[in-house]
Amino acid sequence: MRMGILTGGGDCPGLNAVIRAAAKTLLSRGIEVYGFKDGYRGVIEKQWAPLDRAAVSGLLHRGGTILGSNNRDNPFNYPAHTADGAITYCDASATLLENLRSLELECTIAIGGDGTLSIAQNLCSRGAHLVGVPKTIDNDLAATDQTFGFVTAVATATDALDKLHTTAESHHRVMILEVMGRYAGWIALWSGIAGGADVILIPEIPWSIARVAEKIHARQQEGKLFSIIVVAEGASAPGGGQVVRERIAGSGDPLRLGGIGEVVRRLVEQETGIEARITVLGHVQRGGTPLVTDRILATRFGVAAAELALEGRFGHMVALRGTQVITVPLTEATSRPSKVSADGQLVHAARAVGISFGD
Amino acid sequence: MRMGILTGGGDCPGLNAVIRAAAKTLLSRGIEVYGFKDGYRGVIEKQWAPLDRAAVSGLLHRGGTILGSNNRDNPFNYPAHTADGAITYCDASATLLENLRSLELECTIAIGGDGTLSIAQNLCSRGAHLVGVPKTIDNDLAATDQTFGFVTAVATATDALDKLHTTAESHHRVMILEVMGRYAGWIALWSGIAGGADVILIPEIPWSIARVAEKIHARQQEGKLFSIIVVAEGASAPGGGQVVRERIAGSGDPLRLGGIGEVVRRLVEQETGIEARITVLGHVQRGGTPLVTDRILATRFGVAAAELALEGRFGHMVALRGTQVITVPLTEATSRPSKVSADGQLVHAARAVGISFGD
Amino acid sequence: MRMGILTGGGDCPGLNAVIRAAAKTLLSRGIEVYGFKDGYRGVIEKQWAPLDRAAVSGLLHRGGTILGSNNRDNPFNYPAHTADGAITYCDASATLLENLRSLELECTIAIGGDGTLSIAQNLCSRGAHLVGVPKTIDNDLAATDQTFGFVTAVATATDALDKLHTTAESHHRVMILEVMGRYAGWIALWSGIAGGADVILIPEIPWSIARVAEKIHARQQEGKLFSIIVVAEGASAPGGGQVVRERIAGSGDPLRLGGIGEVVRRLVEQETGIEARITVLGHVQRGGTPLVTDRILATRFGVAAAELALEGRFGHMVALRGTQVITVPLTEATSRPSKVSADGQLVHAARAVGISFGD
Amino acid sequence: MRMGILTGGGDCPGLNAVIRAAAKTLLSRGIEVYGFKDGYRGVIEKQWAPLDRAAVSGLLHRGGTILGSNNRDNPFNYPAHTADGAITYCDASATLLENLRSLELECTIAIGGDGTLSIAQNLCSRGAHLVGVPKTIDNDLAATDQTFGFVTAVATATDALDKLHTTAESHHRVMILEVMGRYAGWIALWSGIAGGADVILIPEIPWSIARVAEKIHARQQEGKLFSIIVVAEGASAPGGGQVVRERIAGSGDPLRLGGIGEVVRRLVEQETGIEARITVLGHVQRGGTPLVTDRILATRFGVAAAELALEGRFGHMVALRGTQVITVPLTEATSRPSKVSADGQLVHAARAVGISFGD
Repeated sequence: MRMGILTGGGDCPGLNAVIRAAAKTLLSRGIEVYGFKDGYRGVIEKQWAPLDRAAVSGLLHRGGTILGSNNRDNPFNYPAHTADGAITYCDASATLLENLRSLELECTIAIGGDGTLSIAQNLCSRGAHLVGVPKTIDNDLAATDQTFGFVTAVATATDALDKLHTTAESHHRVMILEVMGRYAGWIALWSGIAGGADVILIPEIPWSIARVAEKIHARQQEGKLFSIIVVAEGASAPGGGQVVRERIAGSGDPLRLGGIGEVVRRLVEQETGIEARITVLGHVQRGGTPLVTDRILATRFGVAAAELALEGRFGHMVALRGTQVITVPLTEATSRPSKVSADGQLVHAARAVGISFGD
Repeated sequence: MRMGILTGGGDCPGLNAVIRAAAKTLLSRGIEVYGFKDGYRGVIEKQWAPLDRAAVSGLLHRGGTILGSNNRDNPFNYPAHTADGAITYCDASATLLENLRSLELECTIAIGGDGTLSIAQNLCSRGAHLVGVPKTIDNDLAATDQTFGFVTAVATATDALDKLHTTAESHHRVMILEVMGRYAGWIALWSGIAGGADVILIPEIPWSIARVAEKIHARQQEGKLFSIIVVAEGASAPGGGQVVRERIAGSGDPLRLGGIGEVVRRLVEQETGIEARITVLGHVQRGGTPLVTDRILATRFGVAAAELALEGRFGHMVALRGTQVITVPLTEATSRPSKVSADGQLVHAARAVGISFGD
Repeated sequence: MRMGILTGGGDCPGLNAVIRAAAKTLLSRGIEVYGFKDGYRGVIEKQWAPLDRAAVSGLLHRGGTILGSNNRDNPFNYPAHTADGAITYCDASATLLENLRSLELECTIAIGGDGTLSIAQNLCSRGAHLVGVPKTIDNDLAATDQTFGFVTAVATATDALDKLHTTAESHHRVMILEVMGRYAGWIALWSGIAGGADVILIPEIPWSIARVAEKIHARQQEGKLFSIIVVAEGASAPGGGQVVRERIAGSGDPLRLGGIGEVVRRLVEQETGIEARITVLGHVQRGGTPLVTDRILATRFGVAAAELALEGRFGHMVALRGTQVITVPLTEATSRPSKVSADGQLVHAARAVGISFGD
Repeated sequence: MRMGILTGGGDCPGLNAVIRAAAKTLLSRGIEVYGFKDGYRGVIEKQWAPLDRAAVSGLLHRGGTILGSNNRDNPFNYPAHTADGAITYCDASATLLENLRSLELECTIAIGGDGTLSIAQNLCSRGAHLVGVPKTIDNDLAATDQTFGFVTAVATATDALDKLHTTAESHHRVMILEVMGRYAGWIALWSGIAGGADVILIPEIPWSIARVAEKIHARQQEGKLFSIIVVAEGASAPGGGQVVRERIAGSGDPLRLGGIGEVVRRLVEQETGIEARITVLGHVQRGGTPLVTDRILATRFGVAAAELALEGRFGHMVALRGTQVITVPLTEATSRPSKVSADGQLVHAARAVGISFGD
């Protein structure tokens, strides 16, 4: 029997650990395992290779994905080159389904975010055999309590905060850290609590620069001449950006300023007169060796997904609920995004230790 | 109003983060906070000091406990020096209760393991006002899904495994890592999965050196000339140690050999003829900066315990259930130890990726 | 006898380790030690406090400086507030010298960069007693083979490169890391070699985007669809920025784009059509726990400076030459900046392993 | 033209980085590169394989050696199996020389310690073409100021000391860390200074338990109820072990106790009555990702050795002198071991900050 594995969407620490665990589980049952290159693209373009024990050995602690990934691999809207070199998009799903059949794969494990998993669900509805492993660096998927890679990203951001602390403290400055989180502020919230931030700005809680400045001033009253702000990339400036544009006189489009972090930096300097500096972590948060909890979660997900495949429970994916790995339909992956609740325990705990959300 | 905080039992990364979060929560409500030195000993010996904002600032990432701890602070069996310098044990609980009253503490937060918490429970039954925060580096408390410090200890062990991997691989050796876990094998299990161990030996699963050697030989058949073994300190040698003593000719008491790690090392060399080396991590596992998840859990526990105290819910402690911090009676802390289940998901996942438990 | 210590200029890992080592050395000889707050400002404003054993205990591994630092503490051009709240600059050196005398300090140890040390030299020429410890995160001081903090900053940048590698590799992108180095490219050069960068852009070697694109294309020919670029903040864009402004059509002043990293990112995308992402580390590089070699160098510098002070060798500073700590006149600190040599061994080694400097 | 590379002796972080740099340098000059398996054994047993760009890609940060190593690869005393299965030792050097000739290698780069390099020197005197790269985790080679891997090992030991600090401090204990260093105490000395140890015991400075206890007691007088001791594995017990045997009543051979760390632990408990705990790092010190300085030194050594080979300077090896990589005859590798000087700057600095050497 043969089964396949593919990884889709953005990078995430632990992808390799999932691949390894799934492949080892399948290989030990005598299944032949194939890896597809760059997500669904590999199925469409027939770029695949067997994954044997040697291929998945030593992967546990390696960041990235040996299978590669790609953001333009949607089989239902697949890029093709026309005769004159332009790109047009077409439906390549029939090719994909045909290639899966010709490879005689009993099942394919799709590891990816809501995009990858909703495609998997769609393919299943057309008769393909897929199971899923949820992946999101932002941890914004309600179907599972946690996703692998998230804690590693939080640790990278927290490490930056730890470093900014000493230098902020010595030099009486405001330090701003821009972290990932376009729609959900989980990375900002977790790293802000773990890194002892003074202010956390996230998409879910509207904020104003006036309240941020208040917090900075309150700290000065206590003799603390520095402050640390974590801002999620999606923590859009107040007033839909309009106010910001006006306040930053003559600066034009704030998007040109290099992201929300730079916007916050300018606003803080304008409002408080204190020198502010910025760090933009970017893709560093997607890389590196997965931390222990992410290695373990990824391993458990990989094993469980392989067993889902073996049991023929197509159209399902694995998830974490409490301390247990469970199974849910693929449809759950996209139906409920997970956002930070302004009334939740984490935000409450953050406020209790003195963190401001700029509200 | 005044409240107190004390830490008891062995060291654990995150203790300071709990102290900080609890104190900050109480201080912001206008409560005076007192810290007791070295657990219950500080209450009995009147060694206490106010904890103000300055005292708890900068504690979040610091290992250890600024309050100190002590293993001989049981008020019901308290060491006293007699006239001739000998030590005798007496009941100092009346003194302790009297001192708590004289300080006019509305409540005291006791952070500690089953010893510290059962004492707290006992004191509550005599009218004292205490609430608890569970602490165990071994994570062996059924009342809570996880305890702070545990993941940090696992990460320290996993880091050692990562390092042993490269050198074992280059030199064709068996590497043995002895980790903490006298009664429960959680640290060995988690670090073994996260660090890609080949064999995990824990108290909960009886093992034999013959099966361990089988695994090492099976790997050699595959061309892998090295193996990594993690052994929990409580993974007692097979046959209650008797067999070991006989096999290690003339070696006498295996305790003299420096722990179970050394026993395993000798047995492996005898059984396989392959050179084996040992690393004993010891208290390194109790130290260091808490990892992000432990900082967050410790912060949440500290805030929640302070709120328990404020609500007057004496005799209760905080716990983690799924993603939520909940409240349970102190009696739960000691009633149910948590052991690794040989049939549980984690052991199952470990076996699926090829890990042997020597059984 | 009394002596003083002050830290000036930007933050740098190891400052606290120097303070600790100098103070311990002096205290053990029975000297009273005073710490000044925020560099020379503390002398002028009479903000000082005794440094006893307790004050310097536990500092070895802490980033930052417990004495604080300040960029506006030049006694020869010192900011003062006029009656109407404006700031004017005046010569406060007489006050500083008078305060040093009134404190009866036998000598003051000034830890800082070329600014702080040239002020120290100037004060010495007016009869003050100072010795120096050179500090520069950029390692751009020819008087000493190495300065503390530099390797820690390089490690922070290298860690980011390690993380970018996995994600670049998985997603076929160009990753750009902007690091510190306004006038000298040492951090970019060291981290680029240590982190396996493909291109290093530094102030000392003129580069063109065409040659950078060539390197990226050459890698694609070899099947490597990703590239990593490290750029020092002072690696000014080719053509004095003019060319860049024109090429980035309609973008106006490139300074508005958020630094050279963003400039390089846009140029790469324009020139190669490959998606490029940027990380800006900023002050994260100045923070954190000093690495072992920096702790040791800082300790050696602190001890040696204390001994310089005890021997009355005012106007001198410590330096590293080979494996030995030596003494040089303070004048050396500023006379010879250290730049990366395009013909030196390091650049040569970098080129040998395939790194391009865009030239 | 063809050249070879081999690694010999114990593991060391940076070996792979040397292999990568040497191979990349040679490959870019059009040289074919061969890697031998397990040191000289690979030459004798004809176990070799071409090293192309793909083979050395991604090696920079990987610990261990992809070529493998072996402690029983001395061609002048090579193990052979007799007909009845016993092992006898013979001179296999003629076979080795013949195999080198038949492969038509212009030169072979031998990376290893004094054993590996003195064999290389010996083979050169018989007409073979070899150049050397010095490797010793202990840094005990006078021919070079520093060797790669050493700082990484020191960092591993320092990390353990940092962790032991917090727990020792909280619990009033003596913590003992046993580190590598059979003949030279460099790792103990560097990590002891960097990790803030209170006592450092090394082979070069005779010590007594009485002076160690004095230091511990002096700290107690200052209110510091904990102490940290680093002991090099070769810091033989005072009195050639005899005294120790007698003092540890009835314990028999101290070798049975598990090394010098355990001996020190027992002596400390006997002498001071304070609870002492031990950590034995073992081979963890040889593993892991090389730190930045080791990656850079290894890269420079690899490039320089490749150039030595290209220049035909057989019988020479690379070395670090100050900031420059230089060339010295292979004979220097073994002629002068490097020991810690009791009068040197490092020991002096250590004493200045209050560290005791037990003397």
